[in-house]
Amino acid sequence: MSMDIKEIAEQYGTPLYVYDFDYIEERYNSLKDAFAGKKSLINYAVKANSNLSVIAHLAKLGAGADCVSIGEVKRALSAGVSKYQIIFSGVGKRDDEIKAALEYDILLINLESEAEMKRVEMVAKALGKEARISIRVNPNIDPQTHPYISTGLHENKFGVEIEMAKRMYIYAKKSEFLNPVGIHFHIGSQLTKLEPIAEACGIVADLVRSLKAIDIDIKFFDVGGGIGVVYDDEKTISPQAYTDAIFQATKGLDVTILCEPGRYMVANAGVFLTKVLYEKVNEDKRFVIVDGAMNDLIRPSLYNAYHRIEAVAKEGEKTPADVVGPVCESGDFFGKNVPLPALEHNDLIAVHSAGAYGFTMSSNYNTRPKPAEVAIQGDKVKLIRKRETYEDQVRLELECMEESAK
Amino acid sequence: MSMDIKEIAEQYGTPLYVYDFDYIEERYNSLKDAFAGKKSLINYAVKANSNLSVIAHLAKLGAGADCVSIGEVKRALSAGVSKYQIIFSGVGKRDDEIKAALEYDILLINLESEAEMKRVEMVAKALGKEARISIRVNPNIDPQTHPYISTGLHENKFGVEIEMAKRMYIYAKKSEFLNPVGIHFHIGSQLTKLEPIAEACGIVADLVRSLKAIDIDIKFFDVGGGIGVVYDDEKTISPQAYTDAIFQATKGLDVTILCEPGRYMVANAGVFLTKVLYEKVNEDKRFVIVDGAMNDLIRPSLYNAYHRIEAVAKEGEKTPADVVGPVCESGDFFGKNVPLPALEHNDLIAVHSAGAYGFTMSSNYNTRPKPAEVAIQGDKVKLIRKRETYEDQVRLELECMEESAK
Repeated sequence: MSMDIKEIAEQYGTPLYVYDFDYIEERYNSLKDAFAGKKSLINYAVKANSNLSVIAHLAKLGAGADCVSIGEVKRALSAGVSKYQIIFSGVGKRDDEIKAALEYDILLINLESEAEMKRVEMVAKALGKEARISIRVNPNIDPQTHPYISTGLHENKFGVEIEMAKRMYIYAKKSEFLNPVGIHFHIGSQLTKLEPIAEACGIVADLVRSLKAIDIDIKFFDVGGGIGVVYDDEKTISPQAYTDAIFQATKGLDVTILCEPGRYMVANAGVFLTKVLYEKVNEDKRFVIVDGAMNDLIRPSLYNAYHRIEAVAKEGEKTPADVVGPVCESGDFFGKNVPLPALEHNDLIAVHSAGAYGFTMSSNYNTRPKPAEVAIQGDKVKLIRKRETYEDQVRLELECMEESAK
Repeated sequence: MSMDIKEIAEQYGTPLYVYDFDYIEERYNSLKDAFAGKKSLINYAVKANSNLSVIAHLAKLGAGADCVSIGEVKRALSAGVSKYQIIFSGVGKRDDEIKAALEYDILLINLESEAEMKRVEMVAKALGKEARISIRVNPNIDPQTHPYISTGLHENKFGVEIEMAKRMYIYAKKSEFLNPVGIHFHIGSQLTKLEPIAEACGIVADLVRSLKAIDIDIKFFDVGGGIGVVYDDEKTISPQAYTDAIFQATKGLDVTILCEPGRYMVANAGVFLTKVLYEKVNEDKRFVIVDGAMNDLIRPSLYNAYHRIEAVAKEGEKTPADVVGPVCESGDFFGKNVPLPALEHNDLIAVHSAGAYGFTMSSNYNTRPKPAEVAIQGDKVKLIRKRETYEDQVRLELECMEESAK
């Protein structure tokens, strides 16, 4: 897609997120193909990139949605995902979120604690409904990833231990308002090793077998998400190796496999475009100051994440530079010691692999408007989110001032 | 203000930011008093808390504004700050921002590089205006604070070295479109030691004297911001000791002192209120899951910042718990091993010192609406920002979908 990048930046302005919808389609199909012949549902993890047009694009391909707030459930429904392809996960659901999820009649609510189960039961009872649930099991597997995105250890807030899960299934089975139809685990994000996934799968499949023995029939086996992608030179897991490991672990079980890829679908579909404002040298240190900032893309600052950075259509000898934004923090950077040619005002910089956890984590820090988002599909380019304005940012404050002035 | 906290949480819902406007007034006056008898202007650093009502409150007390984007300049003007009390700082200003700042005729534009000076000159020339400027000098002082908020070392992107500053002043003096009226430094944020500030002041005052010798007359001596506050048990700098050090360093100079406190004014005026959703134990680890999350207040996650956390009006034996939000990351926490009594659904938790870099850094991660903001002044409570809705979040995306469906 690099051919049109400069034109797109001119037309829509910078900073800008650009997503390649054809790439997203390829990624979806690669995973769907690896599940061929088995009952499966790919629930796109909306939190990775929750733009309505991205979700709608995946929904048209057949994807379901993995949601972690009622806002994400609404996005999925609004984007055309079938209600029976939506699951609602997350460690902390408010009562009003549980109520809405039951009223929307989505596929299932994923439970992460005993206390949450009791509240779902209570809300379901008040509505006179039966809640389809799954339970997130914490298999205590170290996924060997960044501590902030590792989620399968007991010291994490996520899921429940195996013994607790069993007790919860037995309780749910007896409850008039709960229907335990699924099981779930998710050991972390950006996983690049197959073994922890295979091991977790095996532990959870054994639990399904032991539940079957006490007449609790699990229909949905949710392997979570977290398949890693290439940011730099990571070796990643192939879709076929991934599904083979799952099939191996679930052999003999009559279940529908759910999986929840987010980053896998969209990370490398996206590029963040930003323009050079100034070059600057402090003593021997070279800085390229760009018009994008940590409020637009916080991953380098928050996780010390690597994103490949290049100057678009600019040649010349490369020397190392820190690529930094206008925000008043030393933590506002996209890359350090990035080899770049000499740059001038208005030269275009591409920050790659920005399709996941880019825009969704953006803020208005320093009263910076959130960037626009654009999709490329075939030879078409379309705006999928307008650039925020100053007026958008202050509206909810101005309304208060005007009302209190009355 | 703790007496009303539970009622306020009931009335406005959670998660919620609450600010004590009387405390902000006390803080402003404490600093203003310490400047008594000297020409001075306190420019509130809008980035700390940019709510329009907060700025308006400070403007009524006489404060100016330190802004780091044209959005912040607009906020300051809209909140009633006089244009001659507004300065525009920051390492990366776009041409359209420079143009707007010149058209608004604000007090001065603070320059952070030679390249930026040339662009300001170019824009001023195109408008046929003279730009009042100051130059941010990098005194190469280690402020002994968090690396992300330390800004006065050469290895940082901020400011220019002394020799470069001199060359820039000489250039600006000769330019028809630049008027060098100020000098600026800012060595970091959350400073708890006076010595680095005093040292930086001395270095910059010497520069002012040497500029005077070549007929460059600096009128505004901007000492930046960064006065530390008490989050836990820090020893901080008293306003009087702070201004004494400044007066000492600037002795004999006929300048107006500008300073840019942000955190100092508002950090401890604010509390973040959040309700308990569930308690949960994984093996021996206790988690209190609340309805607020890292998207609302990212400081613990981003800087590993400490915020004092307490259960409001709840007694009982305390045991350590991690206070975590619903966001699907292990990095989503407010505090670790916080001593808390046994808690139930709907119990209220107060996260203290949340008035600065709280709401301004908030995002919509996980499609979570930004919280509401409330101000307490005397015996009055008023909403100063409405809670975001789902519709607010998707509006700029829906408009695109609807337009492309036409």
